[in-house]
Amino acid sequence: MLDLNFFFNPTSVAVIGASDSVGSVGYEIIKNMLDTFKGNVYAVNLKQKPIFGKTCYKSILDIPSEVDMAIIAVPSPFVKDVLEDCGRKKVKGVVIISGGFSEIGEKAREDELLEIAKKHGIRIIGPNCIGIYDNYSGVNTIFLSKEKISYPPKGKISFLSQSGAFAGLILDWTSKERIGMSKVVSYGNKIDVNEADLINYLDEDENTKVICLYIEGIRRGLKFMEAAKKVSKRTPILALKSGTTKSGAKAASSHTGSLAGEDIIYEAAFKQSHVIRAKNFEELFDMAKVLEKQIYPKSDGIAVLTNAGGLGVMTADALEMNNLRLANLSEDTINQLKKQFPERVIVSNPIDLVGDADKERYEIGLDALLKDEDVGLIIVILLLQVPTLSFESIDMLLSTNQKAEKPIIVLCTGGEIVSKQLLKGLQGQHMP
Amino acid sequence: MLDLNFFFNPTSVAVIGASDSVGSVGYEIIKNMLDTFKGNVYAVNLKQKPIFGKTCYKSILDIPSEVDMAIIAVPSPFVKDVLEDCGRKKVKGVVIISGGFSEIGEKAREDELLEIAKKHGIRIIGPNCIGIYDNYSGVNTIFLSKEKISYPPKGKISFLSQSGAFAGLILDWTSKERIGMSKVVSYGNKIDVNEADLINYLDEDENTKVICLYIEGIRRGLKFMEAAKKVSKRTPILALKSGTTKSGAKAASSHTGSLAGEDIIYEAAFKQSHVIRAKNFEELFDMAKVLEKQIYPKSDGIAVLTNAGGLGVMTADALEMNNLRLANLSEDTINQLKKQFPERVIVSNPIDLVGDADKERYEIGLDALLKDEDVGLIIVILLLQVPTLSFESIDMLLSTNQKAEKPIIVLCTGGEIVSKQLLKGLQGQHMP
Repeated sequence: MLDLNFFFNPTSVAVIGASDSVGSVGYEIIKNMLDTFKGNVYAVNLKQKPIFGKTCYKSILDIPSEVDMAIIAVPSPFVKDVLEDCGRKKVKGVVIISGGFSEIGEKAREDELLEIAKKHGIRIIGPNCIGIYDNYSGVNTIFLSKEKISYPPKGKISFLSQSGAFAGLILDWTSKERIGMSKVVSYGNKIDVNEADLINYLDEDENTKVICLYIEGIRRGLKFMEAAKKVSKRTPILALKSGTTKSGAKAASSHTGSLAGEDIIYEAAFKQSHVIRAKNFEELFDMAKVLEKQIYPKSDGIAVLTNAGGLGVMTADALEMNNLRLANLSEDTINQLKKQFPERVIVSNPIDLVGDADKERYEIGLDALLKDEDVGLIIVILLLQVPTLSFESIDMLLSTNQKAEKPIIVLCTGGEIVSKQLLKGLQGQHMP
Repeated sequence: MLDLNFFFNPTSVAVIGASDSVGSVGYEIIKNMLDTFKGNVYAVNLKQKPIFGKTCYKSILDIPSEVDMAIIAVPSPFVKDVLEDCGRKKVKGVVIISGGFSEIGEKAREDELLEIAKKHGIRIIGPNCIGIYDNYSGVNTIFLSKEKISYPPKGKISFLSQSGAFAGLILDWTSKERIGMSKVVSYGNKIDVNEADLINYLDEDENTKVICLYIEGIRRGLKFMEAAKKVSKRTPILALKSGTTKSGAKAASSHTGSLAGEDIIYEAAFKQSHVIRAKNFEELFDMAKVLEKQIYPKSDGIAVLTNAGGLGVMTADALEMNNLRLANLSEDTINQLKKQFPERVIVSNPIDLVGDADKERYEIGLDALLKDEDVGLIIVILLLQVPTLSFESIDMLLSTNQKAEKPIIVLCTGGEIVSKQLLKGLQGQHMP
């Protein structure tokens, strides 16, 4: 099913509608591609004015070598002819950025495109989309202002978005949150390539370990469910579905023409195809951060180790609300810990190491929890801002985690200083 | 009810247990107070070694002038005698930081303290707490590492926390989020001053416009409800209550000895006393940011103006889930907007100005919505990262808001660059 690979790893790309006028879509895309894509990039524009000193071709047919993939950003009435040219050039896939199709009632224009694509065997992403961002190959059609957005570090999370805005926003937001991303695709009116195709492709992608979806409405439900059922066995799929209320559904129908449908139907479909549903973007990416690292608990018994009682209470609440349970620590574990800890430490689950806990107290706790049979996963809560915990405790966690046969998750909150140190320490390590 | 003012605006303060040993509680507190408190600060320590070049007194009784408030950070067995000295010195209030009381089963020690306090008419915050942070007077007993936390800008939100860790964490987190704070109080075992007293005090405080609570369990429910009922008429009260599940309740009982109680009882009590409940800290402070500015919709009809359809859909969902409704725009409004906008703009509610919207399109939209009778509040969603919207649109929003007779809320997301510009623009303005 790697048949969509030419979109993400093309050898050469043509940008049709490339422009040297700052702020225009054609400018932002050709600039992106020249900046980050490692293959050949050709600019195509009727005016043939050189762009960034590069030759500009009048038509894709004038390009002297082969072209795998074309990005089309010309006004909608011209897309048809451009696509025909792409077909004659034997292009394998086109991303049609241009809007002005079914979303404004021009359904006939889309039918024409599909016919041409079928004739030439071209696959289409779009139209009316912002396209592809691939953090590995450097393909980037996201045409937001370069001086206003940043891009995330490399990671194994891919994001498929029915909304173009969210595709761009998530890139910008994950850069701030330092969440590692792989591929982001906004597929717009999805006249050809849809969620099911992309899920199947990402399942085979070595750089994708978890798939996140933003969905307003799915058109071909059965095809989606089939794909999701198959893929989710290996690659976890997370979904944020909006348009769940009447007001939201109405807005979705104006936005992407989606029939948001009864939420209960989506709920059942997600459940049957093992798609995990998130309530909001924070939750979506919190889950993705863990699943990306392919961390699965050994059992449903969770142990919590904390130096902040309140965070322990809230974590206990969260576990129960999510159908997990606090592990029952064995008598052995409890006796051993009571012997080693000062009296004020609360040896229960959560284990409250109390405010003056230092690195050693965490080490003792982790050691015991790793040995306890009922513990399938350990959540380490760090109030790193206390004077008794130095940033060296992060190194201790990393080295403990390397030897550990159970997954350990770190939970920490606060401001810039602590967040930066923690993320610097954990980044690239097998520890969310 | 300003009888607790000596805690927040004392003329002179003694730090009993002050220390020059970096990282100790007594060090962090005396350092804080000398750094930010504008009144007189006296160091008291048995060793009498000068601290930061300042004279150190053996006992509070040796201080030559009057002392309003004392911060006590000495081991628990000595607190009793120190408190007795405070009484003889005619101190009005003490913050007892020291732990080692009922939280480890030493209830008798607390009874002794209460007796002494009663005899001398001293009010007590604590014991076993991290105390007070006042962003206006500079009183600061929060003893987290100075090199690891930052403090928030001045604002009108006050936060009362049953957890010491959350008091510190929220200061650090609000600094990162640039949320303006007024007072933060961690009141620990609350043997004297409790939530009800503090709520009553904050209601009279000119620097507090909204009160946020983190609660694990309330001991004197009726007193709390009475206070909340009275105060919430003028000063909104928001609460995050943890220990809502069985696991959480058990953890809360080990943490603060709280009887978390059946959640349904808290739910009813909050409702009856008009306390608004939040599901998590993000929600708590999202609501506080709006209420702090005393922004109340003119009606329950909400209008949404967006250049990102997906964000419009999610906002519509959120409104309905929170029992608000999308305003029914009048025919006049709709006709007028349709005339002024290009065809691709979706004139409905949400109004989707689509991806190429510029400042002018927002101005036209706002103008019409401000005049529409059914609109009680406007949510402006800005995907500021698009090339067509410059940061000048923030100035336009501010000047429109100044003249507007309806509240306008700005919703924007993304990364560092956009967030910083937006917050810089809105900070200190009457626009959340």
